[in-house]
Amino acid sequence: MKKPPPKPELDPKSDPGIDLTIDRTLELPMYLQICQRFKTAIEQGHLHAGDRVPAVRALATELNLARGTVEMAYRILTDEGYLQVRGAAGTVVSPHLPQPAVHKPQATVPSHSISAALDHDGRAPKPLQLGLPALDAFPRKVWNRIVGHRLRSSEPMRLGYPHPAGYDQLRERIATYLGVSRGVVCLPEQVFVTTGLRNTLELTLSSLSIVGNEFWFEDPGYILARPFLQNAAVKLVPVPVDEHGLIVEEGKRLSPYAKFALVTPSHQSPLGVTLSLERRMALLDWASNAGSWIIEDDYDSEFRYQGRPLPALKSLDRNDRVIYAGTFSKVMFPGLRLAYVVAPLSAVARFQAVSSNLNAGSPYLFQASVADFMAEGHFSRHLKKMRMLYAERRAITQRVFQQELGDRIRINLQPGGMHMLAQLADDENDVLLDERARAVGLAMHPLSRWYIDAKPRQGLLMGFANVTDEREAMRLAKKLKEVFG
Amino acid sequence: MKKPPPKPELDPKSDPGIDLTIDRTLELPMYLQICQRFKTAIEQGHLHAGDRVPAVRALATELNLARGTVEMAYRILTDEGYLQVRGAAGTVVSPHLPQPAVHKPQATVPSHSISAALDHDGRAPKPLQLGLPALDAFPRKVWNRIVGHRLRSSEPMRLGYPHPAGYDQLRERIATYLGVSRGVVCLPEQVFVTTGLRNTLELTLSSLSIVGNEFWFEDPGYILARPFLQNAAVKLVPVPVDEHGLIVEEGKRLSPYAKFALVTPSHQSPLGVTLSLERRMALLDWASNAGSWIIEDDYDSEFRYQGRPLPALKSLDRNDRVIYAGTFSKVMFPGLRLAYVVAPLSAVARFQAVSSNLNAGSPYLFQASVADFMAEGHFSRHLKKMRMLYAERRAITQRVFQQELGDRIRINLQPGGMHMLAQLADDENDVLLDERARAVGLAMHPLSRWYIDAKPRQGLLMGFANVTDEREAMRLAKKLKEVFG
Repeated sequence: MKKPPPKPELDPKSDPGIDLTIDRTLELPMYLQICQRFKTAIEQGHLHAGDRVPAVRALATELNLARGTVEMAYRILTDEGYLQVRGAAGTVVSPHLPQPAVHKPQATVPSHSISAALDHDGRAPKPLQLGLPALDAFPRKVWNRIVGHRLRSSEPMRLGYPHPAGYDQLRERIATYLGVSRGVVCLPEQVFVTTGLRNTLELTLSSLSIVGNEFWFEDPGYILARPFLQNAAVKLVPVPVDEHGLIVEEGKRLSPYAKFALVTPSHQSPLGVTLSLERRMALLDWASNAGSWIIEDDYDSEFRYQGRPLPALKSLDRNDRVIYAGTFSKVMFPGLRLAYVVAPLSAVARFQAVSSNLNAGSPYLFQASVADFMAEGHFSRHLKKMRMLYAERRAITQRVFQQELGDRIRINLQPGGMHMLAQLADDENDVLLDERARAVGLAMHPLSRWYIDAKPRQGLLMGFANVTDEREAMRLAKKLKEVFG
Repeated sequence: MKKPPPKPELDPKSDPGIDLTIDRTLELPMYLQICQRFKTAIEQGHLHAGDRVPAVRALATELNLARGTVEMAYRILTDEGYLQVRGAAGTVVSPHLPQPAVHKPQATVPSHSISAALDHDGRAPKPLQLGLPALDAFPRKVWNRIVGHRLRSSEPMRLGYPHPAGYDQLRERIATYLGVSRGVVCLPEQVFVTTGLRNTLELTLSSLSIVGNEFWFEDPGYILARPFLQNAAVKLVPVPVDEHGLIVEEGKRLSPYAKFALVTPSHQSPLGVTLSLERRMALLDWASNAGSWIIEDDYDSEFRYQGRPLPALKSLDRNDRVIYAGTFSKVMFPGLRLAYVVAPLSAVARFQAVSSNLNAGSPYLFQASVADFMAEGHFSRHLKKMRMLYAERRAITQRVFQQELGDRIRINLQPGGMHMLAQLADDENDVLLDERARAVGLAMHPLSRWYIDAKPRQGLLMGFANVTDEREAMRLAKKLKEVFG
């Protein structure tokens, strides 16, 4: 086969079809961005088989990148069959382009993973981001003093493997706190310290071996739990939610013998409603009769602004059917990576064996420091302070947004939590609005995405914990106005 | 049915068949120990249907336990059908005892989980324990200064969610270190920070979606990886190991198209041998031809006492087939819970998406502190110091043990690592010896347990990193002599 004659080098600046600009704010590494641009240009016909691509050095200068970055991109493109190195003739687009269906590993990667969509990405918090407590209001001085003290005073053995079930003193503090504040009576031995809800679910599912079983999941329900549960090979049964929380009767109709139900009784995720007492009793009855387990995700129950805090569902559990899941991410800060689960009495030994094999265990330093933070009374003081602060920020945000955005949104405040739901008219498109909001730097989330089978309502979920004052609320409202156009 | 007349209360002290003593050093919570004792007594016929058991208060006093603990045990025993509450007549052994096969959740729990067997349990390190660096020699002052500094100087946003792939500065430091010390050339974007080997395997397996595929596993091989891999629904193919490491030809014969191979080339776990250059090339060739992935677990390659450190297998990898796994547990300390994996170039985007969904992310504070520890040169200084210290401790331990235990053991020193293998004659029983060793407080591990299909050799694996001096070695040798009897 005769090789085509070398073509002149492609000049990305002069060809309007080829966009090689690099977005330095994207999570995707720059060399992968280069790969994608080249693939797109090839697939869309802006680059053809045999076209010569810029020399590494030239492109690196052009894009103001290190040579290594461009080299890496070219190496991948060559490995994947998009480019061909021809020595002195330079590098050209391969005459035998790979079949897109076979050779496009990039194509199977979701461009925005769900976590990334919730902005749990280690960057500066974005306005209205969900799930983030008021980081400015955390008592860092007190915390630093406590951590510093534990750091200096701990023995060398504390450098060793942490206990897989958690540090004793922390397990005791959590058990006491749950008894006093959430009406959950449990032994410290029932408390297992985890790194987050995912780790909690992993421990729970492995301990109670429910693979292959049916699993009630609120619809709409906590979006971050979905990928894990789907990978965990359980059969998700979406159960609709109304203004009284999970519709237990629907669950019983759809899947009477499901082995599990994951619920958010205090503050439904994402709708914010509270599971009614009647539904609570019905849910517990069902679990007792069907021999099923209920996982109560009590993620932000600590924040309640109207009336008295409701005790946990677990506090009504007479038959050891409820697994209680809590976290320090919202009441302290997410960077701790500390959460916990209360195992059923009858399954403590299994949780213990499984937690050993999960081989996790969180660093001693933070566990011990949280235990001290609780023991010295800072924890309850901080909670009390945050309840007042959030009540204020919530009221300001709602008032300003409602007033500025008029009839485009309706915010009905729910009694608790750290986020609010701005309902939209049915003919609005929350996904589209969210995309526009991201473009102006806001990090809300479209409600419709949280639905599985139920008819999605249109709305925007907004975290208000970091809306510091009226001025900030006004600034954000102005941005939202742009978004609504 | 007529109820049997109430019997007098059982007195645990006077009945020789009933052992209710509680072992406060066991990991099993005390109320579960009580449950087990009762069940054993019932199953062995020391307690019969209708027998009255001690009142809660009496038993609590007797065992010097809180009443709540005994109450909890009775509640479980009642729930499980072993006891029956008869109000004023007291609590009795149930006349309808549960079928052991159906009602014994305890029976399915391994009495010693594997991690517990390796003593990763958050308690004080035990003599000869495996996998534990010299905790006494870690530069805690320097470390505490660095952590303290990061603690005080970090911005509030650092309290937020950590980046799921790891803290940028740490990823950069790791990439540089691997290039300089292990011959592994990689981009920081290829480095993913994890919490340990299990998390590394989870990320890798999910990213490369190999569920259901065959998986080469060294036989004998790293015992802590086994339960995870078995649960991960891969088909483990045990491939024998000889003095040159994994027998690649055997692997090709047993499972030519396995999707994965997990190997420990620098210092085979547990035999301590090094994978020969010939085998390395054969393994890489196989992976390239079969389109398979090699996971290189380079867990303690940093410690090498004879000759120059071998570069990593990954350094020979021309076709992007090797996934490199390292950890800070051995070179710094296990309580950090920090490890890392170098993703193949072609799979970086997938690793990134999966790490977001795993929703892990380690606390910023430790990641940033390790980055500083490396940047300030403490890391390489510490490594150098430990290499010399371990060489010494290793020599002392071997000499003293060999001399004191004469021909019962043979310790052939391997060139690297933190543990040694005391080989035993074929007619010895390493499991039995290990049990006796545990009884006198030693925490070795029996080699035969690490085998799957291959004919197990008898031996004892001993961590020498914490054998501080000749006197300590002699003390341990004396204990070992008792064990050998």
